[in-house]
Amino acid sequence: MKATVMYGAHDVRVEQVPDARLVEPTDALVRVTRACICGSDLWPYNSMTPSPVGNRMGHEFIGIVEDVGAAVRTVNRGDLVVAPFAWSDGTCEFCRQGLQTSCLHGGWWGGTELDGGQGEAVRVPQADGTLVVLPVGLDHALMRSLLTLSDVMGTGHHAALAARVGPGRIAAVVGDGAVGLCGVIAARRLGAEQIIMLGRHPDRTALARAFGATDVVSERGEAAVERVRALTGGLGAHAVLECVGHGESMSTAVNIARAGGAVGRVGVPQEATIPNAQPSFYRNVTIAGGPAPVRAYIEELLPDVLEGRIEPGRVFDRVTTIDGVPEGYRAMNDREAIKVMVEF
Amino acid sequence: MKATVMYGAHDVRVEQVPDARLVEPTDALVRVTRACICGSDLWPYNSMTPSPVGNRMGHEFIGIVEDVGAAVRTVNRGDLVVAPFAWSDGTCEFCRQGLQTSCLHGGWWGGTELDGGQGEAVRVPQADGTLVVLPVGLDHALMRSLLTLSDVMGTGHHAALAARVGPGRIAAVVGDGAVGLCGVIAARRLGAEQIIMLGRHPDRTALARAFGATDVVSERGEAAVERVRALTGGLGAHAVLECVGHGESMSTAVNIARAGGAVGRVGVPQEATIPNAQPSFYRNVTIAGGPAPVRAYIEELLPDVLEGRIEPGRVFDRVTTIDGVPEGYRAMNDREAIKVMVEF
Repeated sequence: MKATVMYGAHDVRVEQVPDARLVEPTDALVRVTRACICGSDLWPYNSMTPSPVGNRMGHEFIGIVEDVGAAVRTVNRGDLVVAPFAWSDGTCEFCRQGLQTSCLHGGWWGGTELDGGQGEAVRVPQADGTLVVLPVGLDHALMRSLLTLSDVMGTGHHAALAARVGPGRIAAVVGDGAVGLCGVIAARRLGAEQIIMLGRHPDRTALARAFGATDVVSERGEAAVERVRALTGGLGAHAVLECVGHGESMSTAVNIARAGGAVGRVGVPQEATIPNAQPSFYRNVTIAGGPAPVRAYIEELLPDVLEGRIEPGRVFDRVTTIDGVPEGYRAMNDREAIKVMVEF
Repeated sequence: MKATVMYGAHDVRVEQVPDARLVEPTDALVRVTRACICGSDLWPYNSMTPSPVGNRMGHEFIGIVEDVGAAVRTVNRGDLVVAPFAWSDGTCEFCRQGLQTSCLHGGWWGGTELDGGQGEAVRVPQADGTLVVLPVGLDHALMRSLLTLSDVMGTGHHAALAARVGPGRIAAVVGDGAVGLCGVIAARRLGAEQIIMLGRHPDRTALARAFGATDVVSERGEAAVERVRALTGGLGAHAVLECVGHGESMSTAVNIARAGGAVGRVGVPQEATIPNAQPSFYRNVTIAGGPAPVRAYIEELLPDVLEGRIEPGRVFDRVTTIDGVPEGYRAMNDREAIKVMVEF
């Protein structure tokens, strides 16, 4: 089968790999129908040490269940399923409390041991805990939005929850990538009164406004902080969604949070420390978040997608085939595309 | 009047200063009857750049109201009052939500502009918002515990709340100073099932056990992390109270928190960054806390002190007069005393 393999920075190839197959009785075999490229894939795309083996890529996909192991109970052949970006057993202590990204028997797609979503088929470990059956057909008009439930919509939701967005709150979103845009959707859905998007790409900030952003701040650094303060009566935002992961963006996030507020971070941290330890301390700013347990959020968000109340699928502004995946990485990395969907 | 002035590292003097007096109509003049030296006073004690002017010291005191300004309504001459370690108006947006340490019109005791608690009298700005009248007489047997409501007991409580201690939770307390010891009291009071004290001073850890600690870990660094993991089924503590402020203690705090847990930090950060940005992210560990709004907690904790359910006053293991304050600093800095009370 064909799959995407990254061999080093800027070296993404689509090549023939051994067919995915069942190994454990708890596995399912899923034929991928839709996948996508994630902003977090761009971190290794820009920094991966060359490897002769390569890493299988992709952690967001929808597909049809082709086969299941003998122990699988909740998923059947022919089901259309969405996979969260981490697999999990659904039964351990952390899964039971809704933190499936810390599952004691779970893990991450791709790498050197497992299939990735950017390929024709995937062996899904812990299928019962991992997969969610979608109550629609393959040609459903909302397929793009359903695909975002595998990562970016759930991740934006996690940022909003971690930042304690709620009715009447002022939210600020740092980062106008797909996750930041979904963060705007989530903040609005959770009742934020004002939503400030910090971003500088006109196409993205326009989409942010369409999703509910009330203000756009294109400045950076100290100028951005001053602008947000001016927009918030001098006090800053109650809830800040950090959707980038750089030290500078985290620093901005802390500085625009008001006293007693919270930063929900979902951008994968690229540095070993969190900046501004003292300003965040003196203002009692909470720093929360991490890899979103999107598995916990799929059921919650699914009705809103199916009934059209939220349209996170609008973050996809380019569609390609499996062979176009390397070009998709390039386009996202060069900020020509917000998010690329792969159709099989 | 006599007051404590710090002129530089290890240079604390008690000297004559101008008498405290009313300045604003919202002021009260308080004759100090009990004060104390705080672990946080030891940071400047070890690092203050020499100053010819000096800083007035002390932010924890109980006293008798000697006079009030024309606008003061809730405090009267002759009242016995306790002052929180920050003064606040009680009416601004942050005060109304219980975050008095971010009061828009508040501030901190001492320095070059205001009186400090380690002196014979204090001008109290925003007296109505700041002071709490104590329903007891000056000779009350619980005076020591009442004095802790000005800082360390409320600060330990804040750490426990920020770390989300609750019934059935496993709490860990990093730091066996007075705040850490009060953190043990707070964790127990909030229902923690297991309370692990990380500390290495036998007198302090013995007091921690008396306050409710179930385990003591005297190791440091990675050995401490392993020990806590062993005590918690390999998973770590749900709630970690960081009561030191060093980078190393914060690193330990993050590493002993379980996935989805929280670190409540009340130790004043001595470094510009928070360590372990990635481990805390990948495990969704929340980092919260800051200067405790002890003003918000005095009314809540007061009944427990008055009825003897908690005895935070046991952290005082030395009593001195105003003239003994410099020696008190030395004794606390050399870890000969946990916390020094000053009687006037």
